Amino acid sequence: MPEVKITLSSGPDLQDRGLNYGDGLFETMLVQDGKACFWPQHWARLVEGCQRLKIPATDEAAVLDAARDALTGRQEGVLKLVLTRGTGGRGYRPPDQPRPWLGISVYDRPDYPETWYEEGIFARVCSTRLGHNPQLAGIKHLNRLEQVMARSEWQDEYQEGLMLDTDNRVIEGVMSNLFLISGDMLVTPELDRCGVRGVLRDRILNWAMQSGTSHKIEPEIFLDQVYAADAVFMCNSVIGIWPLRRLENTDYDVHHALLRQLQSEFNPPCA
Amino acid sequence: MPEVKITLSSGPDLQDRGLNYGDGLFETMLVQDGKACFWPQHWARLVEGCQRLKIPATDEAAVLDAARDALTGRQEGVLKLVLTRGTGGRGYRPPDQPRPWLGISVYDRPDYPETWYEEGIFARVCSTRLGHNPQLAGIKHLNRLEQVMARSEWQDEYQEGLMLDTDNRVIEGVMSNLFLISGDMLVTPELDRCGVRGVLRDRILNWAMQSGTSHKIEPEIFLDQVYAADAVFMCNSVIGIWPLRRLENTDYDVHHALLRQLQSEFNPPCA
Repeated sequence: MPEVKITLSSGPDLQDRGLNYGDGLFETMLVQDGKACFWPQHWARLVEGCQRLKIPATDEAAVLDAARDALTGRQEGVLKLVLTRGTGGRGYRPPDQPRPWLGISVYDRPDYPETWYEEGIFARVCSTRLGHNPQLAGIKHLNRLEQVMARSEWQDEYQEGLMLDTDNRVIEGVMSNLFLISGDMLVTPELDRCGVRGVLRDRILNWAMQSGTSHKIEPEIFLDQVYAADAVFMCNSVIGIWPLRRLENTDYDVHHALLRQLQSEFNPPCA
Repeated sequence: MPEVKITLSSGPDLQDRGLNYGDGLFETMLVQDGKACFWPQHWARLVEGCQRLKIPATDEAAVLDAARDALTGRQEGVLKLVLTRGTGGRGYRPPDQPRPWLGISVYDRPDYPETWYEEGIFARVCSTRLGHNPQLAGIKHLNRLEQVMARSEWQDEYQEGLMLDTDNRVIEGVMSNLFLISGDMLVTPELDRCGVRGVLRDRILNWAMQSGTSHKIEPEIFLDQVYAADAVFMCNSVIGIWPLRRLENTDYDVHHALLRQLQSEFNPPCA
């Protein structure tokens, strides 16, 4: 297990590969009753990301201790981990024995209006596209300029934007995953070329499997299928589930029975 | 002109968007006789990157002053600028009035063996691909995980790797641009879907135009065209021009007249 430099407040070195290349990963978790919700799932995704990027795994107990320190005196909030490959190497070439750097920060829990949960949100179709990179798909790495560009397409007129890939497939929201409900079928895009495999997305798919709810991970979803769905929702570990009230000019049923069942199951997203 | 926080030695805040999203740009320049070579060209690319990412332009004079400070007492080396959108905003959403952060560092000039210039280098074809993103193509932004993954495919067996896009087009080297010489024709890939538009690449294209050398920016170059070329070279502002001696199993003419002419013109890459 390599040494990992853990910091609770200060930024990384000027030479840190996280800053210079986005060479690292992050996790954002909801905090409730002083604890990070679904820590094991977030940690597992971080470890998968480390394997994919060939960053040595770090000591979970040490990180958990540091996270507890950061959360001292706080009952609610959002915990963010940023794990980079640290400094070293020559240009893009990673060092043979990386010493990862981990930054921990705690934020206030965002105060989203109740109406977004009850009456749904407004979303647009972003013009910024997701490029394909199967090696990086699914993991929560630090190369997020596509999301930044997509989010800069609007101000407050929408609550979320839908992102398509360069072949016009619908993939996800800027900061969330996407589910369609067509009849009794729960459908979400496959994320093997781009996109982030959200922890709440996984939990919803597991719930569907265990409850016997029809569900499908679809390799190709185009906009017409999204517009034709009965209900649509966006989800992530911090917001939970937001029904889509309108996407561009299409209105959806925000009271669909399956959607409401999922909301009662996963809002708030901390059990 | 917004305030820009310039630092010569310390890293950014933990909340800096450069670290968290790769939301920024960089430039790497050769230093000779105590000065950054081709500063105006590098600065122009940085400004173009700022426009593309909607980061407010920073004060060139202030940055140049800080760069001069960083170079005090040094005749040769490499100067690196990292410019980020700074802190602020909400998640991916950029702040309305960003206060950019700029980090300046100076490195020793890499000591490449003379044989790489004289007898050429060995290169491989990387399996890591470049995803398409026309909005980000050409500029030198901080989302460089593809390059890091590509560079981690080999150790010291090669000096550079060729990168293809997800549609099998040949685009560039991991840290350099690519030129083919076929007969008297100088050919380089179009970089409108991915890739970095190198300062030396631009200078070579300008030279070709002014000297009346046949040249072409090719929208689609596939590997068979690269293997069929008479000579191939890789270039960037720090290394200058490296002829390709062998790509996988194909050997090239490292003494091609046009190649030698270019080398005498652009090695070292500081006039």
